Amino acid sequence: MLYQVTFPVRYYEADPMGIVHHSEYIRYFEIARDTWLKSVGFDHKKCMEENLVFPVVSIHCDYKISAKFGQDVTVTAEITEFTGATVTFHQQVLDPHGNVCADGEVKLAFINTKLGHVVRCPESLRATFDGKY
Amino acid sequence: MLYQVTFPVRYYEADPMGIVHHSEYIRYFEIARDTWLKSVGFDHKKCMEENLVFPVVSIHCDYKISAKFGQDVTVTAEITEFTGATVTFHQQVLDPHGNVCADGEVKLAFINTKLGHVVRCPESLRATFDGKY
Amino acid sequence: MLYQVTFPVRYYEADPMGIVHHSEYIRYFEIARDTWLKSVGFDHKKCMEENLVFPVVSIHCDYKISAKFGQDVTVTAEITEFTGATVTFHQQVLDPHGNVCADGEVKLAFINTKLGHVVRCPESLRATFDGKY
Amino acid sequence: MLYQVTFPVRYYEADPMGIVHHSEYIRYFEIARDTWLKSVGFDHKKCMEENLVFPVVSIHCDYKISAKFGQDVTVTAEITEFTGATVTFHQQVLDPHGNVCADGEVKLAFINTKLGHVVRCPESLRATFDGKY
Repeated sequence: MLYQVTFPVRYYEADPMGIVHHSEYIRYFEIARDTWLKSVGFDHKKCMEENLVFPVVSIHCDYKISAKFGQDVTVTAEITEFTGATVTFHQQVLDPHGNVCADGEVKLAFINTKLGHVVRCPESLRATFDGKY
Repeated sequence: MLYQVTFPVRYYEADPMGIVHHSEYIRYFEIARDTWLKSVGFDHKKCMEENLVFPVVSIHCDYKISAKFGQDVTVTAEITEFTGATVTFHQQVLDPHGNVCADGEVKLAFINTKLGHVVRCPESLRATFDGKY
Repeated sequence: MLYQVTFPVRYYEADPMGIVHHSEYIRYFEIARDTWLKSVGFDHKKCMEENLVFPVVSIHCDYKISAKFGQDVTVTAEITEFTGATVTFHQQVLDPHGNVCADGEVKLAFINTKLGHVVRCPESLRATFDGKY
Repeated sequence: MLYQVTFPVRYYEADPMGIVHHSEYIRYFEIARDTWLKSVGFDHKKCMEENLVFPVVSIHCDYKISAKFGQDVTVTAEITEFTGATVTFHQQVLDPHGNVCADGEVKLAFINTKLGHVVRCPESLRATFDGKY
């Protein structure tokens, strides 16, 4: 699956160079993952019921060209690896012309907030990731 | 006119209490104003062509109930006064049940970036504000 | 008492006009209040022990001149009213020349997170506010 | 050289898990780089005079343990490579006990804003990077 969501750049996300600050792409990546999770039935309410959060283990991002205020951005999320202990997404931020602004990889783990430590992906979520890449 | 735009709360906008940080409502207000300006043909590109920016002169905001991650918010913008030198918006943030989370008033001025100082609202924009309240 | 704290403007806080975004002054105000609370022995750990949080009830802010990246800002906090149910701060953001960039008023209430509702200011904190204005 | 700067975590930087949001470490890295540049005489004013900005080319960050509101963080910056076309920093965020919260690598290029494109590191800045690693 390749999930994508499109939204406008916000004014305060642009820096004195007039371009989106590099930290905002990291946030855009999260928005795409959260929107996708919600679309497959794993919204915030369900995560809380399952005492589940997804800490970021590592991030890599290559910055290509700059998104600007006044433009929409399209942010993609695609699962490239699922081990049971971690899930890895390939993610991109694209400008309205389809140019790649940022190209990244984000690895997440699973924490059970009741147990207070890292766990293997719970059964209820496993089906969501399995066969999705 | 009463303009409104709806979008999901972002995870990073929520604070350790699990609720949207009070500074984010101020940003939500700006998003609604910018989206409205774009919808009436005064997008960022046009503002740059006209060397026009809208500095915030004053803000007032009463906080009622808290928006949360996992919810959509609807943000309104309504012009309540236009003097030629300033324009004032009444703005609200509403949760999905229509409850008012924040109720604010934002006054803006007009700066010509080429001249480098405050100016009266240019003719091209005046029609947009006149008769809109 | 007039409390003040000085720190540098951060790059990402400045917007495409090269000036600090108006929402950031609202955050600067909070930083000054939190730093003051810590200095009088009411740090985050103590607040958690007392199940105490301080929701913002209302904010007013007049924007005068712009702070810029490359400058330090000094942020003040002074209690102007304490009713037992709410505490009100007068706050300013000053540039390195002592010019007032923003002049605001912030009213806070007291919530007991265990009870889940607004309470009167607990005895332990009352002495901190009493006679401070 | 190993440069470091210490400052308190801000309340709004913490997310609903009560920990610093992963995007904020990326911003902490920038703060340490900017503070270091200023300390060696290359502050924002000088960069503007030289028409010089430092776009981020790539970022990698491994997240170890979480920084929390109520704590100070120490952020380090150390140059590990300088090619003339790019400069690479190794950076860490440490909690008050010296534990590594985040361990990252940030590669920057040099843009001349007057020319509008990437340039080799100007002579005036070269001495700052040469022999610093």
